[in-house]
Amino acid sequence: MKIVPVTELKNLERSVEQNTEKQRKAVLEILQNVKSKGDEALFEYTKTFDGVSLSSLEVTKSEIDEAISSLDPKMVEIISEAAENIREYHEKQRRQSWFFTREDGTLLGQKVTPLDSVGVYVPGGTAAYPSSVLMGVIPAVVAGVEEIVLVSPPGKDGKLPAAVLAAASIAGVKRVFKIGGAQAIGALAYGTESVPKTDKIVGPGNIFVALAKREVFGVCDIDMIAGPSEIAVLADESANARYISADLLSQAEHDPRSAAVLVTTSKVLAEAVSMEVKSQLAELPRKEIAIEAIRDHGVIYIVNSLEEGADVINQIAPEHLEIMTKDPMSLLGKIKHAGAIFLGEYSSEPVGDYFAGSNHVLPTSGTARFSSPLNVDDFTKKSSVIRYSEQALKENGEKISAFARLEGLEAHARAIDVRLEDK
Amino acid sequence: MKIVPVTELKNLERSVEQNTEKQRKAVLEILQNVKSKGDEALFEYTKTFDGVSLSSLEVTKSEIDEAISSLDPKMVEIISEAAENIREYHEKQRRQSWFFTREDGTLLGQKVTPLDSVGVYVPGGTAAYPSSVLMGVIPAVVAGVEEIVLVSPPGKDGKLPAAVLAAASIAGVKRVFKIGGAQAIGALAYGTESVPKTDKIVGPGNIFVALAKREVFGVCDIDMIAGPSEIAVLADESANARYISADLLSQAEHDPRSAAVLVTTSKVLAEAVSMEVKSQLAELPRKEIAIEAIRDHGVIYIVNSLEEGADVINQIAPEHLEIMTKDPMSLLGKIKHAGAIFLGEYSSEPVGDYFAGSNHVLPTSGTARFSSPLNVDDFTKKSSVIRYSEQALKENGEKISAFARLEGLEAHARAIDVRLEDK
Repeated sequence: MKIVPVTELKNLERSVEQNTEKQRKAVLEILQNVKSKGDEALFEYTKTFDGVSLSSLEVTKSEIDEAISSLDPKMVEIISEAAENIREYHEKQRRQSWFFTREDGTLLGQKVTPLDSVGVYVPGGTAAYPSSVLMGVIPAVVAGVEEIVLVSPPGKDGKLPAAVLAAASIAGVKRVFKIGGAQAIGALAYGTESVPKTDKIVGPGNIFVALAKREVFGVCDIDMIAGPSEIAVLADESANARYISADLLSQAEHDPRSAAVLVTTSKVLAEAVSMEVKSQLAELPRKEIAIEAIRDHGVIYIVNSLEEGADVINQIAPEHLEIMTKDPMSLLGKIKHAGAIFLGEYSSEPVGDYFAGSNHVLPTSGTARFSSPLNVDDFTKKSSVIRYSEQALKENGEKISAFARLEGLEAHARAIDVRLEDK
Repeated sequence: MKIVPVTELKNLERSVEQNTEKQRKAVLEILQNVKSKGDEALFEYTKTFDGVSLSSLEVTKSEIDEAISSLDPKMVEIISEAAENIREYHEKQRRQSWFFTREDGTLLGQKVTPLDSVGVYVPGGTAAYPSSVLMGVIPAVVAGVEEIVLVSPPGKDGKLPAAVLAAASIAGVKRVFKIGGAQAIGALAYGTESVPKTDKIVGPGNIFVALAKREVFGVCDIDMIAGPSEIAVLADESANARYISADLLSQAEHDPRSAAVLVTTSKVLAEAVSMEVKSQLAELPRKEIAIEAIRDHGVIYIVNSLEEGADVINQIAPEHLEIMTKDPMSLLGKIKHAGAIFLGEYSSEPVGDYFAGSNHVLPTSGTARFSSPLNVDDFTKKSSVIRYSEQALKENGEKISAFARLEGLEAHARAIDVRLEDK
């Protein structure tokens, strides 16, 4: 890994959507076809893009049972335990409706309601991601969403991976469809004969999925447009170079555009990590991906103090941050922008990907400046509640009319006046 | 107003963005120019679109002082009192960071942090909207946002309305710029020599503003793409036809595409409102707008019961809902989708627009199914906090590696393994 002076700090903006007008056109056509032709379009696109002719889009109960029994029971247990931890964490995010009253009889409040229905997109391709199923579905279940629909592109055998189906069942999904790409996003946004229209679509996907989510935003809600994964480590001389290197590589193996950044006060550690990354890289099965990621988006910055290090981290606003210092907790107050903050040497990033309980769907490319991990709030919405009293209207009515007239909105003012006239 | 059987129920989807490819191209060009040319582009566009050659974009302290002293002091007092009520309501939305611990030494939590900077767009044109200033700015102030930037298009005299500047000052804005349209959105998203880059842009605007917000979404965050305003009233035979009619018209005067819907169990009330709307309409200064809105998007549905009425409301998911029945509070539990819920005959919708304290930036066009009123959460974000312990890693490490290997992510597994090997 390159060791670079902090004056050469670069942010991690690597938008998934540069120069994508061509793909956008394709996506618009797909969405339009799904909207107008429904299932017929889904069958066609699944044949074209996934290379399989399906006779039905929905996964059956017996397919799910079969998937679970085909898995190593130990693995089913691990997935279930992870699900339990994720549920425990997300339960803490549940919010109550509230109200307060004024002495004049006014009651004001905020009512929290779960969304009626959500769609969870799970990417397919070469690997299966049961952890993404848990992370997308469980917050929705905890929020109280009644209809949770999972979509994922089928393999050439017309099936979804057993681990994905098992995780869906463990997480509490009732309906699973074998569709992927922009066509799946269209189905969830508009609804088809088979696929219910949903109010929100969450989960990462490829460029077509990302563009389709952006297009349907407004018809339904979406979570975020996720970019390639990234990790930053803030470390002092006490940190373990082997651990840090392994953690940096855990993100580098995701994607050639993944980023891995070390910010440290220690030149010795910087040199050690640089060498250790090289040697660990050589042994990785996905080393072609990781080598490219480390070469293009791997960097070590030397800083003069941990305070300066925290500033650098805030400028980067990383998806994952590990703090590997003698007293990591003392730096927590200085960190303003990071998706997930891992404290201390045992808090390896994959602990959060799979098992600790927090969510692994996190803001990337510096969007931690303004975005949050996927959470229960994403599956609920609020309504304001206003019960104005007769006394309050008598006391404040004229002020309200005056304010409305200042804005030139006479009908607003008269809605108050008709009531005052009656008093 | 038309009285229509509920079997002919239509939803209120009136997207602001149909057939807008041409405007989108113009917006893309504007954004690109602002990004590359900065202030120069802002001066040019302000000349072209607002018809004024400015020498500086930022409003000065003395311009603000002048504006306040030019206003009726009573009006300044009313705006200040409204601001105080809005602050009181939004203070209740503030959230704490939290954590919990497990016996194995693990600590998991969620850290809540305000955004660093936000931009608030306030529409200009023929009228001034000081209430929009309060509603956009105060939640950001309460959230703890340090840099709040307000933008609004100048009049031909190169000034912003006095009431807008007064409200900005009362709400706590430090920096105000005389820019509008897509160019203002570009300035807030990318930053220019004068205008700071912000992390989130909120506030309603015309089609160019809406399209520009959609385009920059991801570079920064945005609140929502707002459509024309709407009101639905759920009423029984006890309701006052004059009040309801005045409230329906208060929304109808906003825009020819505004919607006004009455859902009632009472045919007598339906007839009375239909006639009363007609007679009140005749007297309105903005009657041309309101007549068109009532003609195209005004409708009365007769239902058999208030339960059925609540179902109809949930299908419509109105921006504003008034419940005008004998016992409005008893229906609150049945309402799932509405931006703001006004209970009882004194809770006229303009009470919420200006004074009660809740926010008037609300989800429109049925998006209350999945969106919330503008609130303090919109100006904060969360970070997950994970402190895994040695004991937890020892006990769960092998499960975590196994999960990672199930997904084919060997480097993830090894990040755990290097730590287990040392034990």
